[in-house]
Amino acid sequence: MKHFISVHDVTNVNDMVQLAMHYKQHPFIDQHLGANKRIGLLFLNPSLRTRLSTQIAASNLGMEAIVFNIDKDGWALEFEEGAIMSGHTVEHIKDAAPILGQYFDILCIRAFPALQNKQDDYSEQVMKAFMQYAAVPIVSLESATLHPLQSLTDVLTIKEHWHKPTKPKVVLTWAPHIKALPQCVANSFSQWMTHWGEAEFVIAHPEDYALDATFTKSATITHHQDEALQNADFVYVKNWSTYHDYGKIYSNDPSWMLTEQKLQLTNQAKVMHCLPVRRNIELSDEILDSNASLVNTQAGNRVWAAQAVLSTILKTL
Amino acid sequence: MKHFISVHDVTNVNDMVQLAMHYKQHPFIDQHLGANKRIGLLFLNPSLRTRLSTQIAASNLGMEAIVFNIDKDGWALEFEEGAIMSGHTVEHIKDAAPILGQYFDILCIRAFPALQNKQDDYSEQVMKAFMQYAAVPIVSLESATLHPLQSLTDVLTIKEHWHKPTKPKVVLTWAPHIKALPQCVANSFSQWMTHWGEAEFVIAHPEDYALDATFTKSATITHHQDEALQNADFVYVKNWSTYHDYGKIYSNDPSWMLTEQKLQLTNQAKVMHCLPVRRNIELSDEILDSNASLVNTQAGNRVWAAQAVLSTILKTL
Amino acid sequence: MKHFISVHDVTNVNDMVQLAMHYKQHPFIDQHLGANKRIGLLFLNPSLRTRLSTQIAASNLGMEAIVFNIDKDGWALEFEEGAIMSGHTVEHIKDAAPILGQYFDILCIRAFPALQNKQDDYSEQVMKAFMQYAAVPIVSLESATLHPLQSLTDVLTIKEHWHKPTKPKVVLTWAPHIKALPQCVANSFSQWMTHWGEAEFVIAHPEDYALDATFTKSATITHHQDEALQNADFVYVKNWSTYHDYGKIYSNDPSWMLTEQKLQLTNQAKVMHCLPVRRNIELSDEILDSNASLVNTQAGNRVWAAQAVLSTILKTL
Repeated sequence: MKHFISVHDVTNVNDMVQLAMHYKQHPFIDQHLGANKRIGLLFLNPSLRTRLSTQIAASNLGMEAIVFNIDKDGWALEFEEGAIMSGHTVEHIKDAAPILGQYFDILCIRAFPALQNKQDDYSEQVMKAFMQYAAVPIVSLESATLHPLQSLTDVLTIKEHWHKPTKPKVVLTWAPHIKALPQCVANSFSQWMTHWGEAEFVIAHPEDYALDATFTKSATITHHQDEALQNADFVYVKNWSTYHDYGKIYSNDPSWMLTEQKLQLTNQAKVMHCLPVRRNIELSDEILDSNASLVNTQAGNRVWAAQAVLSTILKTL
Repeated sequence: MKHFISVHDVTNVNDMVQLAMHYKQHPFIDQHLGANKRIGLLFLNPSLRTRLSTQIAASNLGMEAIVFNIDKDGWALEFEEGAIMSGHTVEHIKDAAPILGQYFDILCIRAFPALQNKQDDYSEQVMKAFMQYAAVPIVSLESATLHPLQSLTDVLTIKEHWHKPTKPKVVLTWAPHIKALPQCVANSFSQWMTHWGEAEFVIAHPEDYALDATFTKSATITHHQDEALQNADFVYVKNWSTYHDYGKIYSNDPSWMLTEQKLQLTNQAKVMHCLPVRRNIELSDEILDSNASLVNTQAGNRVWAAQAVLSTILKTL
Repeated sequence: MKHFISVHDVTNVNDMVQLAMHYKQHPFIDQHLGANKRIGLLFLNPSLRTRLSTQIAASNLGMEAIVFNIDKDGWALEFEEGAIMSGHTVEHIKDAAPILGQYFDILCIRAFPALQNKQDDYSEQVMKAFMQYAAVPIVSLESATLHPLQSLTDVLTIKEHWHKPTKPKVVLTWAPHIKALPQCVANSFSQWMTHWGEAEFVIAHPEDYALDATFTKSATITHHQDEALQNADFVYVKNWSTYHDYGKIYSNDPSWMLTEQKLQLTNQAKVMHCLPVRRNIELSDEILDSNASLVNTQAGNRVWAAQAVLSTILKTL
């Protein structure tokens, strides 16, 4: 594995999950692996869980992690080829990336979409530019369209909680939110569900909220949440803004909030969310405070997912 | 010791001071104690001395310290039970705290009072919520009403400079300031003086600046600074805003500034301040630049106080 | 070497360059040197390359590096002796510096000029105050008038790329920019070229942009860029604002941008820049993307220059 940008960088999802579970049992077993190696965590957007879990994963592997938060006003990067840089951008990616590649053995990057222009966001300009110019492995800490460390965590969490021989029914359901959010988590979860292939995968969302079909190929898609929830074993709750008429909030129908009552429709489903969650908007207190909730487990598992990814890359250096 | 929020968490103040003195002589003697342990330093408000001294203390004990400054706009926490989170708060403490508790073995938190509502501040909502939900030891890096790491440092500094068999006379005197400051340092110092019990403790402040009586039980209180300074062995200078009519600046009488002349009244008293200090407003240059000043010693001692607290908690993990 | 503020702190430039080259070959050879030593990196102004390279250099030497970025509004330092601190400054350097000196074995400081008042900036108030009050070695991470870590890097980079017995011709040329920049890099490069003495050193700039003559004593100065570029072996491109009528942008003549065509005048010169660079304003894409460019090598060499400086100081502790 050179980079970790999407599920396509992973040879075998189950092997990667297995490795993450191994680290959960033995956090410090590979502490020699990262000796005298450095990992840079570059945040173009803020982060709590992702920063901490990746930093801890790196440290468990004996690497030195250096975090740098880029205030966009302070260090606006230019991406346009041939730009005459007389404006607000202060450094071109062609100059910035190679240097970071000299300073670090692995470079992790978070760069959210602007949600202004679909083509720009879905071209994954930032990740691609770093891959092109940095000359070291690039790990996505959430990009414009995907969040693979979250998705690996999610598969891990599902596997930990499913012990039957049959495939679990996993439902990704849209939920209301007060802000226009990226499609990253939903895209990425769909992509990983597809690639993993060991679940019956259903997506429920209001009509206008169809995701990019590239990611949802294996999913049964419905606009009826109740229908989707029938016999579900896992319900992943997540808001996203519109994809087709890009980055908008159309309806924000509060009836899409997951409640205890709706959960009755399921097969005593476990409930997942990547956090942070708007309580009583996306998900009700009664669920989050119950045993059905896996959200804390997911957040904890972020460490082991990151550790599996970093150690896999470290072994190739 | 599970948490360290106030003097009530300490079994024996003198033992804790002794341990801090021991670390001052032998900073790295317990470097094994924190191996593979992580401490999170969460700042809801900015810090220089507290951050650095706690980070250094942790590192002296072999722990990995991770600092995260929370920009309040970026990660506004919700504390209200049952809140419908459609406003500016992005994550509930019930979701945030357990995750931080998974990532860290000890969690240190700084959260200043808003000085808007006495009940809110004096309920110590933030500390209590982290203690309730994080499931790991919580260490206060200054809370809404107390600053115990500072107070432990202060007792340590007094003990280092007092070698007579009698009790020293310790005076806490209010001083002018241009901003409305919390009562934390004054409350906490009063609480520790009371608990320690090895000083004759006097508080001098203008009439409107009475502190919460809960903390000042053992103190002789006067509104006459000159009277208080008579035969003082230590003078602790600190501004605070009003407690009863909460968070106000009433008079800001410049004659309350401690000067060399006033110090003549004392028993060649040593002068203390937790820093940062407004020179020539709270305390005159002539004192701060003289041998009477212990302010640098106090700031240096912050490391050993923190190290004593962290090692005591580490031993229980 | 006690402090590292300018070339005058270095006994022998070539020995220091040699040490940096040694570390480039063997980054971890002196990892024992910094055991249980701490270095504070205090940024009064933002930094990317300088922060990362110094942090990595410290870590290569086994030191613990702690970075703290000072938001000027949050922690405005007072420098005036005898100030009555009733304004926006919250802490006097006389109180802040000694404490940082207690916490760290070496203190590194970045403090840009305000470009408002020449006397203030050229007095190097901040560096001098820290040297006076901190009681530990002070390393400049770029001060109001100089940037010695950059200049040591630059000499190192020139030496790496010059293998003839004759002196190379090194040209420092002014370039256009959209903002008024400090003279630090140009001053410092001139000072190091002078002290090193192993190059024929020429400075080219438009008439109004003369530098402080203190630094440029050994240089041939011209206002004709073409003339300067004739037979140049190295061309260092850098903008600076006016020195005499201080901190202004007079002309910003775009014809001073270095281009491929101009480079034809040189002896296949290598092109240098300290970064960040405004592409197609200071330097054209065609040069930056060609083999003539040393800018990435320079940025990488920042680590080894810093490591040489820190290890030299460590050996004196």
